[in-house]
Amino acid sequence: MTEKGEFLCSCSSLTPSRETARFYLLGIFIAVYMLAGAAIFSTLERPAELMAHQLWDQRLKDFSQLYNISCEDLESLLLHYEEARTAGIRAEPGRALWDIPGAFYFVGTVVSTIGFGVTAPSTMTGKILLVFYGLFGCSATILFFNFFLERFITLLSFLTLWFHKRKNRKNGSGEINVEERKPSVYQVTLILWCAVLLVACGAASLYSAMEGWTFLESLYFCFVAFSTVGFGDFVSSQREHHEEIWPYQMANCLLMLLGVCCTYSLFNATSVIMKQGLDWTLGTLGRIFNS
Amino acid sequence: MTEKGEFLCSCSSLTPSRETARFYLLGIFIAVYMLAGAAIFSTLERPAELMAHQLWDQRLKDFSQLYNISCEDLESLLLHYEEARTAGIRAEPGRALWDIPGAFYFVGTVVSTIGFGVTAPSTMTGKILLVFYGLFGCSATILFFNFFLERFITLLSFLTLWFHKRKNRKNGSGEINVEERKPSVYQVTLILWCAVLLVACGAASLYSAMEGWTFLESLYFCFVAFSTVGFGDFVSSQREHHEEIWPYQMANCLLMLLGVCCTYSLFNATSVIMKQGLDWTLGTLGRIFNS
Ligand SMILES: [K+]
Ligand SMILES: [K+]
Repeated sequence: MTEKGEFLCSCSSLTPSRETARFYLLGIFIAVYMLAGAAIFSTLERPAELMAHQLWDQRLKDFSQLYNISCEDLESLLLHYEEARTAGIRAEPGRALWDIPGAFYFVGTVVSTIGFGVTAPSTMTGKILLVFYGLFGCSATILFFNFFLERFITLLSFLTLWFHKRKNRKNGSGEINVEERKPSVYQVTLILWCAVLLVACGAASLYSAMEGWTFLESLYFCFVAFSTVGFGDFVSSQREHHEEIWPYQMANCLLMLLGVCCTYSLFNATSVIMKQGLDWTLGTLGRIFNS
Repeated sequence: MTEKGEFLCSCSSLTPSRETARFYLLGIFIAVYMLAGAAIFSTLERPAELMAHQLWDQRLKDFSQLYNISCEDLESLLLHYEEARTAGIRAEPGRALWDIPGAFYFVGTVVSTIGFGVTAPSTMTGKILLVFYGLFGCSATILFFNFFLERFITLLSFLTLWFHKRKNRKNGSGEINVEERKPSVYQVTLILWCAVLLVACGAASLYSAMEGWTFLESLYFCFVAFSTVGFGDFVSSQREHHEEIWPYQMANCLLMLLGVCCTYSLFNATSVIMKQGLDWTLGTLGRIFNS
């Protein structure tokens, strides 16, 4: 990734004012993007939220009338249920959360910063330990992701070189331009985009077969997990009978690892293109204000 | 961050075998670290999980006997509650989730990849939109974090330069070594570590005052949020009366932004030190096997 390397190396050669302008321009862009997103998601989800509230209030009232229990008593039960939920208890029976495979899954969500939140330390010792555990774990994972990206680009460079060599041999010209070896950031982004799509589709087929989700829901889960957002509304491998299916658990871990690595790389490649876009915007703005 | 720049620039000059060795060594290190973590967290949390299960089973049984409801009927109510929960309904009344400020908070957890999961799109349109929204949002945020890190190091460089200039003027020597301008990765890590601690302590004081959490719980929340793990077991600014306290909401957003930026930088700086540690380990292993 030449652009990425240049971008980090050239920080001292840039004038501070250009750096500052780029930083603030991106800040403004993100703020506007977030405001627009808030407006759109609010429009989309607000009616569903109100409907869900109505439905739940009705169900609670019906239940309280049917069994002659006051709503306050039911709510105290629900508060107890909320308390139990933080320890991983669900109405639908699930797998044990803190046996060794469960704890391994938990640790995986910490170091990858996915953090589904199905499992979270409930003891104070666990909470304190998590802070120090996470600090080193997350740093190590970031390094691993960076190594993955490096190796991915090296692989692409070798493939490009091999492809050009073969083409040149066919054309009869023996010279190889060294610059041709380096794939452009656009090529890398495109290939990463395809890789993420491929992994997501493969994983989604597996999840839709094993978890009872639709294919679209599985794709949504894949994106949420791979991008390390990890809402926790869909979490793979949590059903009671999954505990015994070792091949599925292994496949789940490997697909997650591959997906997260590819998506991290895709985000980084996209961010390099965005940086070029910012530079272009600044240049255009400069020309407009100077003329 | 010289080391970071070098590390990304030097990828083509390294022999593939060394790169490969480093990649696998880190992979093994992370796997061992995760297994050790799984064992420790399982030991710590498994008793609490079993106790919580016992407590909840007892409470459910008591409730079913007291009001003469079958456990199955109660469980169907809890399943309905789970369904309502995904739409953001809680036993304890909270703020509206999908009004504009709520949606803004949600969008913030997406682009920062914190993903607390208190709010997640429930409609299919929202889910599909989220995938595309997140792709660009997360890339932009990664770029923003990288800019922040660059600017932080530039600021440190200027401070170091200023400090050396002052010292040299006092000592009477006018020359400034250019190398002195660049802070080492250890200095940067130490300063970032202090910055994260400072922001976390400041934020924890605010949260322990506003959320009814203990100071340690608030610190734990800060780490979970700043590292973008975001379990969602503690989520700030979700209480009913928080909706009206604008200064608190603003302070919450700004502290989160500052904390996430500093922690991202800290993780990156730590990962550079880890890379040096890996190189040292490989060198030592090489000497042992060659002698
Ligand atoms: K997360
Ligand atoms: K999360």
